[in-house]
Amino acid sequence: MVFQIDINGDIGESFGAYSIGCDTEIIKHISSANVACGFHGGDPTVMHETVRLAKANNVAVGAHPSFPDLLGFGRRNMIITRAEAQNYTTYQVGALRAFCESEGIELQHVKPHGALYNMAAEDPDLAGGIIESIKGFRKDPIVLVLANSKMQKLAEEAGLRVAREAFADRAYNPNGTLVSRRTPGAVLTDVKQISDRVIKMAKESKSFSVDGKTVELGKVESICIHGDNPEAVRIASVIRTTLMNEGVQVRAMREFL
Amino acid sequence: MVFQIDINGDIGESFGAYSIGCDTEIIKHISSANVACGFHGGDPTVMHETVRLAKANNVAVGAHPSFPDLLGFGRRNMIITRAEAQNYTTYQVGALRAFCESEGIELQHVKPHGALYNMAAEDPDLAGGIIESIKGFRKDPIVLVLANSKMQKLAEEAGLRVAREAFADRAYNPNGTLVSRRTPGAVLTDVKQISDRVIKMAKESKSFSVDGKTVELGKVESICIHGDNPEAVRIASVIRTTLMNEGVQVRAMREFL
Amino acid sequence: MVFQIDINGDIGESFGAYSIGCDTEIIKHISSANVACGFHGGDPTVMHETVRLAKANNVAVGAHPSFPDLLGFGRRNMIITRAEAQNYTTYQVGALRAFCESEGIELQHVKPHGALYNMAAEDPDLAGGIIESIKGFRKDPIVLVLANSKMQKLAEEAGLRVAREAFADRAYNPNGTLVSRRTPGAVLTDVKQISDRVIKMAKESKSFSVDGKTVELGKVESICIHGDNPEAVRIASVIRTTLMNEGVQVRAMREFL
Amino acid sequence: MVFQIDINGDIGESFGAYSIGCDTEIIKHISSANVACGFHGGDPTVMHETVRLAKANNVAVGAHPSFPDLLGFGRRNMIITRAEAQNYTTYQVGALRAFCESEGIELQHVKPHGALYNMAAEDPDLAGGIIESIKGFRKDPIVLVLANSKMQKLAEEAGLRVAREAFADRAYNPNGTLVSRRTPGAVLTDVKQISDRVIKMAKESKSFSVDGKTVELGKVESICIHGDNPEAVRIASVIRTTLMNEGVQVRAMREFL
Repeated sequence: MVFQIDINGDIGESFGAYSIGCDTEIIKHISSANVACGFHGGDPTVMHETVRLAKANNVAVGAHPSFPDLLGFGRRNMIITRAEAQNYTTYQVGALRAFCESEGIELQHVKPHGALYNMAAEDPDLAGGIIESIKGFRKDPIVLVLANSKMQKLAEEAGLRVAREAFADRAYNPNGTLVSRRTPGAVLTDVKQISDRVIKMAKESKSFSVDGKTVELGKVESICIHGDNPEAVRIASVIRTTLMNEGVQVRAMREFL
Repeated sequence: MVFQIDINGDIGESFGAYSIGCDTEIIKHISSANVACGFHGGDPTVMHETVRLAKANNVAVGAHPSFPDLLGFGRRNMIITRAEAQNYTTYQVGALRAFCESEGIELQHVKPHGALYNMAAEDPDLAGGIIESIKGFRKDPIVLVLANSKMQKLAEEAGLRVAREAFADRAYNPNGTLVSRRTPGAVLTDVKQISDRVIKMAKESKSFSVDGKTVELGKVESICIHGDNPEAVRIASVIRTTLMNEGVQVRAMREFL
Repeated sequence: MVFQIDINGDIGESFGAYSIGCDTEIIKHISSANVACGFHGGDPTVMHETVRLAKANNVAVGAHPSFPDLLGFGRRNMIITRAEAQNYTTYQVGALRAFCESEGIELQHVKPHGALYNMAAEDPDLAGGIIESIKGFRKDPIVLVLANSKMQKLAEEAGLRVAREAFADRAYNPNGTLVSRRTPGAVLTDVKQISDRVIKMAKESKSFSVDGKTVELGKVESICIHGDNPEAVRIASVIRTTLMNEGVQVRAMREFL
Repeated sequence: MVFQIDINGDIGESFGAYSIGCDTEIIKHISSANVACGFHGGDPTVMHETVRLAKANNVAVGAHPSFPDLLGFGRRNMIITRAEAQNYTTYQVGALRAFCESEGIELQHVKPHGALYNMAAEDPDLAGGIIESIKGFRKDPIVLVLANSKMQKLAEEAGLRVAREAFADRAYNPNGTLVSRRTPGAVLTDVKQISDRVIKMAKESKSFSVDGKTVELGKVESICIHGDNPEAVRIASVIRTTLMNEGVQVRAMREFL
């Protein structure tokens, strides 16, 4: 049996004179990049350079649309309408796709960023607006969603190509949802634990709950990792190596979806 | 002999709670719309609604990219690099094109806005960045330029589809360039004068200089009009009627370019 | 017995090329102006001109700080921290006060705008941040709050000078709180009804509930009116005239607080 | 004879999630801090924390107003009017001063940032707008200007308190103006050379021209240093130590102006 999985990470969140993240390092360990589109980070020049970086590293490019909140890095909840969610997505995805086009590559996927991701996972209006936007593109990008979320269900019902993602460093509830970051033990930092979990996800579509029991996640096509600091990059490197050593192929989601 | 000409005007410059311009009126008198892309005016929701408005009125849509200066409405000179000009254009054009796509129409053209238009007309770096951006789109939009400008020459050399525009309400220098707005008599307000001039442009590719002599403009495919106030709308209405009465067909530039 | 009351209204919400509101009209009917500070509307030049307009009309000036959301005109709920609420308030109030100073007038009050006003009325963190900010000014401005809100209580406990406001055109619940705008009958449009209510507020500190019964509001120092369209201005004019005819003096809150 | 001089440096230019500069290091080597005010860097929370940092290190605080260009970090020339220059300055200085006030310290000075600094040094409209703004504050802050600039002359004529600054790491023309950064040799990197120059500035109000000759700078009250990278911080440290070893007291400009 062949195991294959995608690894996705956020890049391109620098802005003007401001640098953030370890893009040139993390790019080596992911197969799909979520590229900021200017609303929480990224600017036109950063976007162009980031698309080039991804292309040079043979990493697939996705759009990472956000609430319009540069000051809050897209991490603050906002109340916007379904139409606004749709239009903000179209604007950002359209802008990023133009850079892909200028570099001769395809836009692979769309993954909402930060607070928009968290809210849309469970809010049918936000999810619906984003889905409606993606359907409006002639060649639909894949939508990358939290496994077992309402948004996953809505995207599938809408007939979109859907990739489900799990988090390498997060504890799960028995029902397959994420444990809140505010709960002690919700975020893992031990590399061995994280690696074990990733193998479990890739081979068995399972993870572990806070109480140590295995949890069914359902099929997962992508694993989300972080690259915002050197320690995160080191963990990413171990994850990728561990997966390869265990016979799991790391490939961009479009290659097997 | 068949005379045909395009009439272009700016719309979609409202932003959030702020309304500006007489879009629902001026749309009736133009064949091509320059739609703001969020940098000097326009926001994702306004852009979506504006594309729908243009489609409903059978008016072709173009992108109207600007310097990033909402506070100055894109009318203030800024010093940006060639790469920034390129990337700002790609971002804005890509965003607007996505709304066109979601409504099932093609993006027809690109026309820089305000200070970017004025500076790019004569600055080879700004013009070059914009041209480079447009070449990056798989299906190049037409670039709409000031007739007799350096940018016209550069765009033609780059092999782009180029439309040349003249201004209905502006006086020309004997060499075919625009008289500076700061010169008395540079801007016309008399409807009869403007109408005469437009006929001259459409039929003979000529206009009048400040001293009343005719000026060779070279071939002109589009006439730029304004729609930011009721009087401007009235003039636009007269221009269109006059052209039709004189046997000149008003058509979107893509139909005859 | 002498009756006196303040009338407050929002002005200075234009931005760059964008005009909004009927500032030069509404200014004639209010005694205190809530001036936008650049986060939801207003820009430095608009702020300067607005302070001059208020001064010329002998209207007291207050700051109208908002969430940082120009695109949403400050009307969208956002989740920000207490420290952010404090710092955003200090920034905006400090900026506006500098324009007052340059024109030789005092900043009278602070009234949060839109979604920040609504959320802070009941959220102790937001209210606390705003109150903490106001306490940081050497000469505390008055804080203008929704009568009977949690923020009123917190501001009083903090030892600030507090003015309580009622809404001329809103229905009240029996307990003195506002009926939600989503409830039918929540917003009044009949000028006679509004005028009767305003007299009731000014003379008896009462209003009417949706079912027509009188409601105790507690003491109210200011009445909030609107000036965003010609009809609103007309109502404002009637309100002021009615109050004067009924022997109620309309004066800036600082004159009697 | 007592020699005393101020050392000024830029801090507080971080924004939201973005960190820039070595503020906690450079603060140890300066006597006056130029604090960003939100237009090119800085945000309300960063401003508050930066004012606290300066206070804790006994460093005087100045405002560092900029063109409204976060994307360009205030380094791009823009054409704005005199009134805009005045109002942008009032807005930013007023905002920063409010944070000083909340921390119980005085705002010491105003120094324009980046492109605004460079343009205002020689443009009487920009300089005039900034000067007009500073005059509008009840207790005028000191204006920190490039020695031998037009702005110095205009500020003196306007009766402001003026501090003149020289650059530790820049070559000078024989007439006391700065050599353009585009000229080879314009920026010094050798610590020994820089230190020698600083002593020359502090004790003799002289510097060196590109051809090695001494240049009269006129009296200089402040030396500008940089703190945007670890090497710059190291140079700053050496400059301060050298000055002290040579018997020059490093003090905030307000203490001896």
